[in-house]
Amino acid sequence: MDIAGTTRVFLILGDPIAQVRAPEVFNHLFRRHGVDAVLVPAHVRSAEFDGFVRHALTARNIDGLWLAIPHKVGMVQLLDRCDTLARIAGAVNAARRNADGSIEGALFDGVGFVKALDQFGIAIGDARVLVAGVGGGGVAIAGSLASRGVGSLALFDATPGRATEVAQRLRAEFDVTIETPATSDPAGYDLVVNATPLGLKPGDALPFDVSRLVARTTVVDILMTRQPTPLLRACAERGISAHAGYEMLVQQIPEYLAFFGYDALARSVQADPSDVRALLQPR
Amino acid sequence: MDIAGTTRVFLILGDPIAQVRAPEVFNHLFRRHGVDAVLVPAHVRSAEFDGFVRHALTARNIDGLWLAIPHKVGMVQLLDRCDTLARIAGAVNAARRNADGSIEGALFDGVGFVKALDQFGIAIGDARVLVAGVGGGGVAIAGSLASRGVGSLALFDATPGRATEVAQRLRAEFDVTIETPATSDPAGYDLVVNATPLGLKPGDALPFDVSRLVARTTVVDILMTRQPTPLLRACAERGISAHAGYEMLVQQIPEYLAFFGYDALARSVQADPSDVRALLQPR
Repeated sequence: MDIAGTTRVFLILGDPIAQVRAPEVFNHLFRRHGVDAVLVPAHVRSAEFDGFVRHALTARNIDGLWLAIPHKVGMVQLLDRCDTLARIAGAVNAARRNADGSIEGALFDGVGFVKALDQFGIAIGDARVLVAGVGGGGVAIAGSLASRGVGSLALFDATPGRATEVAQRLRAEFDVTIETPATSDPAGYDLVVNATPLGLKPGDALPFDVSRLVARTTVVDILMTRQPTPLLRACAERGISAHAGYEMLVQQIPEYLAFFGYDALARSVQADPSDVRALLQPR
Repeated sequence: MDIAGTTRVFLILGDPIAQVRAPEVFNHLFRRHGVDAVLVPAHVRSAEFDGFVRHALTARNIDGLWLAIPHKVGMVQLLDRCDTLARIAGAVNAARRNADGSIEGALFDGVGFVKALDQFGIAIGDARVLVAGVGGGGVAIAGSLASRGVGSLALFDATPGRATEVAQRLRAEFDVTIETPATSDPAGYDLVVNATPLGLKPGDALPFDVSRLVARTTVVDILMTRQPTPLLRACAERGISAHAGYEMLVQQIPEYLAFFGYDALARSVQADPSDVRALLQPR
């Protein structure tokens, strides 16, 4: 499908922008399924973000925005409404202009993670889950886990007070047992999630003591770069079941499509995400 | 070439927008020549135009704008500079952000027309030329003819005083004989250009009395729709040499490319515009 005057336009906003993968993925899907829409990168700095967003959405064929780093948080204050998980996390992945002109946002990081667990065959209904790191990604994941229901949820963050504060926000919304242990000791959990940035830089410490993991524990590392990550390698050496996080990106794709009204395409990708999975393979 | 995070972005602004052909043409050229750039439509209404333009150009990878109706005039006041022909016409086809952050515009309608005459093999150095209709398109054409040099230029417009006012602007810039006849009588000219909208709507009168054309006269009708136009058909019936105007669109394409810094691609298209010509064939 070539871009024409009739094409519906979406922008992905980030700073930097060159690394974003979404245009390749979504334009492939639009083209393959004959959808007259396009996703285009926009390199917008934080100082210019508010003005850019407000004015971009005045164009009648610019239907919505994807938010990349650092704009997932900054977008929230420009919204007329968003869902509970986005409000708790204070961040959105996407924003659309509704038919009534209102701007609505949504967060898919957490639901993508929970759907990825389904793909991995990891049942969480009674599980004891530790989320290490409750910055942006960790809060989204903890929120979706709490929303879906788990046996218990433990939150740890290296920043003092951060885990306690997130736990309070979650308890106010969801009826789930939430602990805030003083350390990231992973002993005794059924599922341990690395949502810290540890492993991004060479020489980083591991996010927790892998030697303390017990045999029944499953680990998920949501770091998207340098696969397999140091944590995944350390788990493999100990024979601990561990999964790379990029499946949570794969599982978010249908969420974006449905949010922007492409329901048939969303169902098609959900039913067979194999080519999306291939496109999103870590490089 | 797929759209990626690294892609340079151009927008074409119009209201309406669905009819614009430029995205098909330029994206075809970018793709075929491996240029990592894309031209995307933006349906921007006049009330939102100024804000949209100012903020869109803050994105570091949005390098420029194509202006479609009705924004060719409105863009001029947002420019830091433009060329003489754009200033005379009070309109631009394109605007770019220069390295120093300044916004510069340019008008290609007239140069496209003059280059089309070259393609048709019509020499104008000593020619007596009548331009019927000096609205936006006609002023651009008259300006480029005056700039290039003709034997004499006659301007006619149905709006009282309009031709006189345009003639004054041209005389202030160019050393060329300019007349403003009281009627659109085409008798005695070497070249007669229809730059009026007459012929767009069924039942329109012809822009001038075709029976008054002499055998040596060549006619160009710049109307882009409903080919062959009523004027072209009337000329054919009388055996008068007449050309469709869309070649002026074809000849503008390299001008846009060079303006936005794609010099090699501009030269390539100028050397062989055959596939651009095929894409721009009136439908």
